[in-house]
Amino acid sequence: MDRIAPPARVAFIGMGVMGAAMAANIAKAGFALTVSSRTRDKAAALEAAGAAWAATPAEAARGAACVALCVPDTPDVEAVLFGPGGIAEGAAPGTVVIDFSTIAAAATADFAKRLAAKGVALLDSPVSGGPQGAIDGVLTCMVGGDAAAFAAVEAVFAAVGKTVRHLGPAGAGQVCKAGNQLIITATMQAVFEALVMGKKAGLDPAAMREALLGGSAKSFVLENHAKRWLDGKTAPGFRAELMRKDMRLAIGAARDHGMHAPVTAAAAQMMEALCNSGRGGLDVAALGLLVAELSGAAE
Amino acid sequence: MDRIAPPARVAFIGMGVMGAAMAANIAKAGFALTVSSRTRDKAAALEAAGAAWAATPAEAARGAACVALCVPDTPDVEAVLFGPGGIAEGAAPGTVVIDFSTIAAAATADFAKRLAAKGVALLDSPVSGGPQGAIDGVLTCMVGGDAAAFAAVEAVFAAVGKTVRHLGPAGAGQVCKAGNQLIITATMQAVFEALVMGKKAGLDPAAMREALLGGSAKSFVLENHAKRWLDGKTAPGFRAELMRKDMRLAIGAARDHGMHAPVTAAAAQMMEALCNSGRGGLDVAALGLLVAELSGAAE
Repeated sequence: MDRIAPPARVAFIGMGVMGAAMAANIAKAGFALTVSSRTRDKAAALEAAGAAWAATPAEAARGAACVALCVPDTPDVEAVLFGPGGIAEGAAPGTVVIDFSTIAAAATADFAKRLAAKGVALLDSPVSGGPQGAIDGVLTCMVGGDAAAFAAVEAVFAAVGKTVRHLGPAGAGQVCKAGNQLIITATMQAVFEALVMGKKAGLDPAAMREALLGGSAKSFVLENHAKRWLDGKTAPGFRAELMRKDMRLAIGAARDHGMHAPVTAAAAQMMEALCNSGRGGLDVAALGLLVAELSGAAE
Repeated sequence: MDRIAPPARVAFIGMGVMGAAMAANIAKAGFALTVSSRTRDKAAALEAAGAAWAATPAEAARGAACVALCVPDTPDVEAVLFGPGGIAEGAAPGTVVIDFSTIAAAATADFAKRLAAKGVALLDSPVSGGPQGAIDGVLTCMVGGDAAAFAAVEAVFAAVGKTVRHLGPAGAGQVCKAGNQLIITATMQAVFEALVMGKKAGLDPAAMREALLGGSAKSFVLENHAKRWLDGKTAPGFRAELMRKDMRLAIGAARDHGMHAPVTAAAAQMMEALCNSGRGGLDVAALGLLVAELSGAAE
């Protein structure tokens, strides 16, 4: 499979906050860019900067060496790939499709098989790093799929990510992302159980967090999510309802692989409860508010 | 309460791996040192270096401005403080006792009250950092108890610790340590659930760990405990049976404070199962072996 490099054409489907920022960095890297989205407004800035507009994913895929997409959930990916006017209709054999969405690992493996029958390679590459990471082009890309296809589009990954890892066959990227999300949610729950207990016992939770940061309990979550809770900041960030979706995917992946995963299960249930409490639109660190309430320590 | 400084006399009770190393650093800081332990052999090196020997904690406490102890569990601390020949028999009013043991927070608060009736202050100061941290004098000390008593013995803390934090009233140090241990155990369990799932899904868990270290799932545990599991290293380190003890304390503290703590509970149960599987003497990261077995992914 030939390596593609600028000025080859890349299509990008899905102009959400993440997709638009990633597409902008692909254009900045010198690739010719075609964009497509359900709402054309969201592509206005990219069109003004020179990107071509395509009315459908199929049209966007025509003449593109690589087609990237970033959409909310599994059914959205299926529609963009295989629905009427989908990528599968327009992509020529030899095209590499990169799916940056976070979706079910099992579905990804199925989609890859169906595209392979048409000579099209699918790489799953869920990302972490959030909107700011997307804007700065420093995302972590967790990639699954054919190794030759990955090598062919490394220049596209280099435009959007800082840490780019090919981890295994189709679905491997999604499994890694599921692991990423379950670790974050479970660590967050543990950190809040500890800090709320401290608060109830008469400790200053801020001083307790600083003491804990000095040792083996140290984590990105203790440093950042706990700080947001202590500061009373609930604006997202990363919305709780998105983490609920991701934890449902993690539970699904754990079940598919026959895992004994008690902490993943408990953490996923807490994310359900957080959204059920009407806080799905808040930052995921609002979990600390729920732990405090359930423990009789709400302000 | 007067501040004590070298060459004032400090007594140290309990010559385990941690206690002997901490006592050595107190002597190095210029304090006169008296040591006592159930087994005199363990004090031989310190005696050779000039420390005085006392047959009982009471005798050790006579003439000491500060009495430190580091013993295995709650009943051991009670015996050293209040048993026949205990510290309470020998300590003059104004003495500050520092308990470096990790024990029940509620018991600590009770012990502090009983000593206060004799004019003796008790500070609870469980530590983290392990044997190497004790040898290097860089422990994290999580301190609870009277603030004036803490100020009086700051020079003793400076001899053994790098991060020394006074967190609140009697028991506050133990609550913080319980939080530290529950965060470590729960994070470890989450990390192993993620990595074992990756292994079952065909990913290389070592590559997966490296990808996860690039983002928000990053922690001391992912960096260190996961590495130990990947390398097949099971020699302690920190023994699983000690973490089981600490997780029982964490569960006790959570119950005493009316916490809703589902992840703490799940993680504590895993530590029980790990010890029940005959691996209590292995490093705590042997938890990864159990997660793999329970998930049908053992080698």
